Amino acid sequence: MTQWYLQPCAEVNVGAAEAARQRQAQLTKPAGSLGQLESLAITLAGLQGRRLPAVDKAWITVFAADHGIAAAGVSAYPQAVTGEMLRNFAQQGAAIAVLASEQQARLEVVNLGVVNDPGELPGVRREIIAASTASFLQAAAMEPGQLEMALLAGRRSVERAVAEGAELLICGEMGIGNTTSAAALACGLLDEPPGRLAGRGTGVDAAGLQRKIDAITAALAFHGGPHTATEWLRRLGGFELAAMTGAYIAAAQLGVPVLVDGFVTTAAALAAVRIQPEARAWMLFSHRSQEAGHTRLLQAMDGEPLLDLGLRLGEASGAAAALPLLRLACAVHARMATFGEAGVSEA
Amino acid sequence: MTQWYLQPCAEVNVGAAEAARQRQAQLTKPAGSLGQLESLAITLAGLQGRRLPAVDKAWITVFAADHGIAAAGVSAYPQAVTGEMLRNFAQQGAAIAVLASEQQARLEVVNLGVVNDPGELPGVRREIIAASTASFLQAAAMEPGQLEMALLAGRRSVERAVAEGAELLICGEMGIGNTTSAAALACGLLDEPPGRLAGRGTGVDAAGLQRKIDAITAALAFHGGPHTATEWLRRLGGFELAAMTGAYIAAAQLGVPVLVDGFVTTAAALAAVRIQPEARAWMLFSHRSQEAGHTRLLQAMDGEPLLDLGLRLGEASGAAAALPLLRLACAVHARMATFGEAGVSEA
Repeated sequence: MTQWYLQPCAEVNVGAAEAARQRQAQLTKPAGSLGQLESLAITLAGLQGRRLPAVDKAWITVFAADHGIAAAGVSAYPQAVTGEMLRNFAQQGAAIAVLASEQQARLEVVNLGVVNDPGELPGVRREIIAASTASFLQAAAMEPGQLEMALLAGRRSVERAVAEGAELLICGEMGIGNTTSAAALACGLLDEPPGRLAGRGTGVDAAGLQRKIDAITAALAFHGGPHTATEWLRRLGGFELAAMTGAYIAAAQLGVPVLVDGFVTTAAALAAVRIQPEARAWMLFSHRSQEAGHTRLLQAMDGEPLLDLGLRLGEASGAAAALPLLRLACAVHARMATFGEAGVSEA
Repeated sequence: MTQWYLQPCAEVNVGAAEAARQRQAQLTKPAGSLGQLESLAITLAGLQGRRLPAVDKAWITVFAADHGIAAAGVSAYPQAVTGEMLRNFAQQGAAIAVLASEQQARLEVVNLGVVNDPGELPGVRREIIAASTASFLQAAAMEPGQLEMALLAGRRSVERAVAEGAELLICGEMGIGNTTSAAALACGLLDEPPGRLAGRGTGVDAAGLQRKIDAITAALAFHGGPHTATEWLRRLGGFELAAMTGAYIAAAQLGVPVLVDGFVTTAAALAAVRIQPEARAWMLFSHRSQEAGHTRLLQAMDGEPLLDLGLRLGEASGAAAALPLLRLACAVHARMATFGEAGVSEA
């Protein structure tokens, strides 16, 4: 039986996109003068299958998980922070909690397994796979069954979102060590050297960056290859990375657009596209992270981000910061007058 | 007696900015990981003189005026559009009307003089200087008294905003031919050739762009120079350009931050800074316009814009699109937990 994540994705509604394009050409502004706000509205029309798209109901899932590779000293923060941040999400103290509530976006947090487990918390789902992945220096990060669980955790988050009528999905992540995992995964998928894709993450110094590069170099030597995208994800990814990969594929299958966040989420998005290429059409890209390798990841998917603000926090914070642009694009598209309605002369 | 626009500006509150900087360093995120969202909050704290800034009350004034230079065939649209768009603003059909109402920003429109005058309209103030400036090919665009009236119209808009408690000011413009006026003004102020600063505006073709360049070249030859910034503004500017210049200076004098829009507004902002250099500290830059010369104008003021979305509409639309980023920056700054409050380990 074919795995669920290899099943086809929904088709984009070309007619709705074309109807939106025609409407844009009639609105009282020089053609093209609203740049990406115009193309956003047209793209969303095609994805939502309606001439007048809307993203009033935005759904954000943040997946948290710990990483065996953290033991290699690749983060500026202790591993305990992953679990501590789960409590901070629950208490609305984290950046994404503020960004979501300011915009009336629904935020759910999924604990996939952390070393410093805070237990039951309000607003945090427990879908524990293990306390941590294995260090990919000496083993695959995940057992095959763990990978399947993580991918499925992502799909289930999308199913919950769809059941509540979400018009846009945003995935985010929290996990000490996960920029190293994401960079390693990207090196595997893109066949790039670690020095091109590893960056400062939470803010390691030059020695810390070198430890990241050394760890990834060693991991790539250990794991060999070439491998399929699914196998790279299992060997070098993390539970939250795989959950986001599963979410991106499921969203495309269920026909809901996603707004991709930063470096770690884009690595998961690339894995999704390599596993199921039809998923690409459902992705919008929110921002260009300050993390060094992000531009290469965006390039690999021909992704044109909306913002470039030097963000490098993760947690879906960049996608949440870009959400207003999607909403404004939809509002302008729906509510501006046409030349005919307004009695304004055309060019 | 010294002209009002040469009087000193308010001082930035360095202590409030420093208090905001210290707070940012304690919030539960890697230091610096929110990039420009952090620096925005710190800058706004200094300008508003409070550790926790806010831009809930945003005030937008769009100044409309016609230009004698339009007769030189420098726009893709007929001159009647300026007046027609005033009606479209009043009827909430223009992009800025949608962008303002979506964000509960106060929008006022000021008619400084248009050839195709629509008369009294709801929400549109009449402060008519003349039906149009003179064509700067054969004369100064404004008489000295007209320039003073336009500058003062800008100051009065700021005084109304301040009276209503505005925490942020945005100026916008509408005027067929005004990218030619703005480019000419910028050439005068920066001593740059017209080919470097003139662009496609509303969307002229190559021949139209050449007409713009030729017109500016002829104007620069006619007006000679060097001149003071005020004199360049009088000779090559427009009523709405001068009003925005007056508004930017008045805002700085009254101690209210401004969010600068695109090419035409930035030319007015540059004139403001050349007239009263202290005004620069009160300016935030919203976006990099697709209009060719905008990057040079930003560079002249060391302005780092927030967005780069290929916008080139004017009307304050780019500033309105960036407003959510200021609001989110303030929200994150005020509402995120500190490491101590959240019990999260530091780096």
